[in-house]
Amino acid sequence: MTTHRELPEETLDALVEVLDEIRTHPARSRAEIVQARGLSRAVVAQRVQELLDRGLIELGAAGRSTGGRAPRLLRFRRDAGHLLVADLGATSIDVAVADLGGRILAHHEEPADIADGPQAVLGRVAELFHEVLAATPGLTSDLWGIGVGVPGPVEFETRQTVAPPIMPGWDGFPVGDYFAERFDVPVWVDNDVNVMALGELRAGVARGHRTVVFVKIGTGIGAGLVVGGSLHRGAQGSAGDVGHIKVTDDPAVVCRCGKRGCLEALAGGDAIARDGRLAAESGRSPLLAELLDSEGVITAAGVAWAAGRGDPASAELIRRAGALVGEMLSTTVHVLNPSLVVIGGGMSAAGDDLLAAIREVVYGRSLPLATRDLTIQRSALGHRAGVVGAATMVIDGLFSRDRIGRWIARGAPDATT
Amino acid sequence: MTTHRELPEETLDALVEVLDEIRTHPARSRAEIVQARGLSRAVVAQRVQELLDRGLIELGAAGRSTGGRAPRLLRFRRDAGHLLVADLGATSIDVAVADLGGRILAHHEEPADIADGPQAVLGRVAELFHEVLAATPGLTSDLWGIGVGVPGPVEFETRQTVAPPIMPGWDGFPVGDYFAERFDVPVWVDNDVNVMALGELRAGVARGHRTVVFVKIGTGIGAGLVVGGSLHRGAQGSAGDVGHIKVTDDPAVVCRCGKRGCLEALAGGDAIARDGRLAAESGRSPLLAELLDSEGVITAAGVAWAAGRGDPASAELIRRAGALVGEMLSTTVHVLNPSLVVIGGGMSAAGDDLLAAIREVVYGRSLPLATRDLTIQRSALGHRAGVVGAATMVIDGLFSRDRIGRWIARGAPDATT
Repeated sequence: MTTHRELPEETLDALVEVLDEIRTHPARSRAEIVQARGLSRAVVAQRVQELLDRGLIELGAAGRSTGGRAPRLLRFRRDAGHLLVADLGATSIDVAVADLGGRILAHHEEPADIADGPQAVLGRVAELFHEVLAATPGLTSDLWGIGVGVPGPVEFETRQTVAPPIMPGWDGFPVGDYFAERFDVPVWVDNDVNVMALGELRAGVARGHRTVVFVKIGTGIGAGLVVGGSLHRGAQGSAGDVGHIKVTDDPAVVCRCGKRGCLEALAGGDAIARDGRLAAESGRSPLLAELLDSEGVITAAGVAWAAGRGDPASAELIRRAGALVGEMLSTTVHVLNPSLVVIGGGMSAAGDDLLAAIREVVYGRSLPLATRDLTIQRSALGHRAGVVGAATMVIDGLFSRDRIGRWIARGAPDATT
Repeated sequence: MTTHRELPEETLDALVEVLDEIRTHPARSRAEIVQARGLSRAVVAQRVQELLDRGLIELGAAGRSTGGRAPRLLRFRRDAGHLLVADLGATSIDVAVADLGGRILAHHEEPADIADGPQAVLGRVAELFHEVLAATPGLTSDLWGIGVGVPGPVEFETRQTVAPPIMPGWDGFPVGDYFAERFDVPVWVDNDVNVMALGELRAGVARGHRTVVFVKIGTGIGAGLVVGGSLHRGAQGSAGDVGHIKVTDDPAVVCRCGKRGCLEALAGGDAIARDGRLAAESGRSPLLAELLDSEGVITAAGVAWAAGRGDPASAELIRRAGALVGEMLSTTVHVLNPSLVVIGGGMSAAGDDLLAAIREVVYGRSLPLATRDLTIQRSALGHRAGVVGAATMVIDGLFSRDRIGRWIARGAPDATT
């Protein structure tokens, strides 16, 4: 474990602390770092010089004087490098270029079908990476890393997809290696809901929360969990797999995972679309019938749109899905006692019916202590949650203690993860 | 935050690392500490001297020579102080004396009724603390801390019980202050299942696991969660409150918490005892009828005993309770993806029927990825899990980074928590 390390732990710890303090603020003086982190002046001075030498920070404007000469403020060089990120959905690809501060510099979105398999989908992502890079104005820095969110379970350490129910052909596919070989930079891959939860934690509504449940309601249903201020992936990376929690004993409800009674089979986007089509064909919803006539298809987004236009049958479908998600969340709230539940994914844009139904069940069903200070709200990042979260994942990885230790030992960032 | 601190963070970090390394091994040389923790030789030498000066460690036997004079090994002085711990159940009190390594030096158990209220119950605990101290042979060290587990929700920071459903009179009672005033040492108080989970994590079957669900099946049902290697208490300390998860839509199932359909109302010890009495009175179980005749009462332990003797009606009650606990655990496993589930509490001693029923449902119901490497087993510490866990809680607190920082600043341990 320590054989290749050339820095004593205490020196590396201090370097990471100093960099974190500067990275997470617009600007910082040496005195502020000493104060905030409790490090000694000498240690801060040495680590700051090291970070200046490596081009990770720069001297900014003069700060406030406390007597003598005003100190120069230190700033993180978010433009010292850039990142490529992709958010793969069941039916879409989002790619973006981000800076080292997680700001999105360019963004492209297009429809796709995850069922086309990894070669086709990842091949298209690689093309889009080149295109979006070419389309980003004024980009002169080096590419430092790649982050990818995929709509199924991922073994985080090996960066492979694992037994994904809606992703035929993806089982065991080395998504991380695929991009590492083509772009020669470190690559991080995670489940899309974990990535989105991370985005909300660092840059969205979950900032400052320690225990958060982020639920994505899209084609499928899944959750990303923040526990103790960090993402919780579980023993096999399948934590938050809430779409396959049993919510009914009805044996007729068969899920695509092969089990019976799963939440996703009743409240996921596919289920809502299916029930919407039935409402259109049976005449229960004239508005959905019109939509089916004109579009030839009923999607979950179409049902949400009709609910927003006052269609009673559609509103009922959305409310029923919300109530079922609420049942699952009530259980999850009893288990984890979060301070915040965030509702994201395509269906979260479905007007207020869904959120109202979820809230009603969770607050009605749970013990007072667990919901006393519980907030349930919509994702702040919306459809950008995936790419913002993927950039966050890469930045967390690049500036992690272990990786910085390896940079220092080798003298430069390296392409292994 | 840093105004009273006299040590720079890097010095305190190193001190905690050195002490942890020595505390968690039978003996350690300075070279082993340098190797294991990646600290520099000079830093280790300074921190070791400080710990020797304060009497927290001592020089032991000579270690293995690597050329020159054989180095003296360093040992933690587990007898430098002692602890008092109590595990309050719904129907029992356990008290014990432990050393600073968590070894139980003396243990006393007696029946009690938590519903007698805090003054009566805690007054008896204080008496028992004095008695068990007097009964511990050869105790010459000082009392360093007290740990208490209570069978209901606790706000960990304030050490108060909160809205406990089975504990009338306990809401908002300052359990921590009660003992701190009487014994003038730091006191830690937590929910009994959290305490037990901590005991299993440090000294039981959960050693080395990062994600663990410890389920206590006793009068009530609750869970202690280990996430990322640490206890997860949740935003209000109510994480793991799984006894009140809804497991049936049957409106006739009313729980003592006031809600309907709770797991505890069907599978807790009180529910099993009630159903066992019905089986005795209806003639479905001749063995339970005999037991009722001779004892005048049917307890959950009585039903478990009858099941172990081959009584079909009792075995069916135990299996049904196990299946319901399994349903809850299947959901919890989907949420958290633990590597280990531990079954503890009074009912866990109920033979193999309960464990078999739990396993059948969890493995049958959950997705393969979540259960691929999942182990479900019985508590190793059994009825001592509470006192061992309470000692662990106190030790974790006494040797935490924050508290050691305060010792160093003041020159001595202090009684505030």
